[in-house]
Amino acid sequence: MDDAIARMKQDAFANHLGIELVDAGPGRARVQMAIRDEHRNSVGMVHGGVIYTLADYAFAVACNSHGVLAVAINCSISYFRPPQGGVLTAEASEVSVTRRLGTYTVRVTDTDGELVALFQGMAYRKTRSV
Amino acid sequence: MDDAIARMKQDAFANHLGIELVDAGPGRARVQMAIRDEHRNSVGMVHGGVIYTLADYAFAVACNSHGVLAVAINCSISYFRPPQGGVLTAEASEVSVTRRLGTYTVRVTDTDGELVALFQGMAYRKTRSV
Amino acid sequence: MDDAIARMKQDAFANHLGIELVDAGPGRARVQMAIRDEHRNSVGMVHGGVIYTLADYAFAVACNSHGVLAVAINCSISYFRPPQGGVLTAEASEVSVTRRLGTYTVRVTDTDGELVALFQGMAYRKTRSV
Amino acid sequence: MDDAIARMKQDAFANHLGIELVDAGPGRARVQMAIRDEHRNSVGMVHGGVIYTLADYAFAVACNSHGVLAVAINCSISYFRPPQGGVLTAEASEVSVTRRLGTYTVRVTDTDGELVALFQGMAYRKTRSV
Repeated sequence: MDDAIARMKQDAFANHLGIELVDAGPGRARVQMAIRDEHRNSVGMVHGGVIYTLADYAFAVACNSHGVLAVAINCSISYFRPPQGGVLTAEASEVSVTRRLGTYTVRVTDTDGELVALFQGMAYRKTRSV
Repeated sequence: MDDAIARMKQDAFANHLGIELVDAGPGRARVQMAIRDEHRNSVGMVHGGVIYTLADYAFAVACNSHGVLAVAINCSISYFRPPQGGVLTAEASEVSVTRRLGTYTVRVTDTDGELVALFQGMAYRKTRSV
Repeated sequence: MDDAIARMKQDAFANHLGIELVDAGPGRARVQMAIRDEHRNSVGMVHGGVIYTLADYAFAVACNSHGVLAVAINCSISYFRPPQGGVLTAEASEVSVTRRLGTYTVRVTDTDGELVALFQGMAYRKTRSV
Repeated sequence: MDDAIARMKQDAFANHLGIELVDAGPGRARVQMAIRDEHRNSVGMVHGGVIYTLADYAFAVACNSHGVLAVAINCSISYFRPPQGGVLTAEASEVSVTRRLGTYTVRVTDTDGELVALFQGMAYRKTRSV
């Protein structure tokens, strides 16, 4: 698992956004990110694509944690409220894993601990190891 | 509509990623982006969050094109194949719009014109104008 | 709340399928159903539409439990494994509720207690009471 | 393909609801259904589970039309307006098909030809033929 996690840290886009991998284990991951000016949309809110990317990265770490290369095939996200404070956290947990498919939910919370968005991702697991 | 479109061009995160608004009209938008090294994930593919953001921005322009502020409440994306070539295009079209809700689909294609991902977004329309 | 729950029990399609409302409270509901021959698809498995309907009914009871008429606007379901045994249970819980929108997740389990499907539903809340 | 289609017609739940397979071809299907009293929910509208099942059946026929057994893994549906008139039609078309995965969209329309719901389904394709 450690190799897979080390590999996941070399994520150029996650690094570019300032997302940090805080904790990971089999089927789970927690990541966080300080909000920057460049993360905002045309009305000054944190961009939906930033919140999605944060959740997607937690999902990617969790579903690749078993050492089998897994790629996202279908993801959905619901947005509940604009985040308060300067830090966003995303926590992924495993719902189901079979030989070929893995499903994960990710909760995105703000500095107040309020739920900002809920993400669900399904990954296809390839046979070769990461 | 022109004011709403002009406003949508001031999207910090879309600009940061190099996404350009190519064309827009009532209920529709086309955007494109040249792929950069910083857009890749840990296995060198274009990051799912980049593809999502491109689609989400086309969706945001399309659903705000009517001059009523609309915010994303639920989005889903399916990924079909890794993009070929250096440019991605996303084209949003309107499926349904009522007083309070708008639904849009966005097709993301690569340089070869192949479908890379399909996005669907639902927005809640606020009463105040943009 | 009791009036809303009583009203929800008059659901013709849920009754037609043999779905029973076992328990309900503010923002939550548990329903169950014995599997019948007519619930199967062309390969003899429980039909995806039956599993969806079971989950959707739990969602409907949960989101109408506050006494405000709520209608489904977007639902998604992931299927993990064919159910074992003769009874299916669906349990809905509230993820987020604002003035206009409510989001719920529903876990569908079989007789062995295994997770068969995960449902997520978003409802639009109308102003008139049920 | 004809064998696969003939097999799909033996769908107990679709038959129980009165859904008819009107037309099918490689990667596509059209089905329809007359609305019955037993299809309604607690507020007298056509039940979301009925609309979903109609769409899901069109999806199942379309994704099994290639003669490879395909099972639903993830489906989503957005509801736009209550259907008018007595007949519902669902038309499935193929978005993407790879060796293991197929994605389809289904448009559900009412007697007036208005779009009632939009369904998207992803199926996992097993190796054995139907």
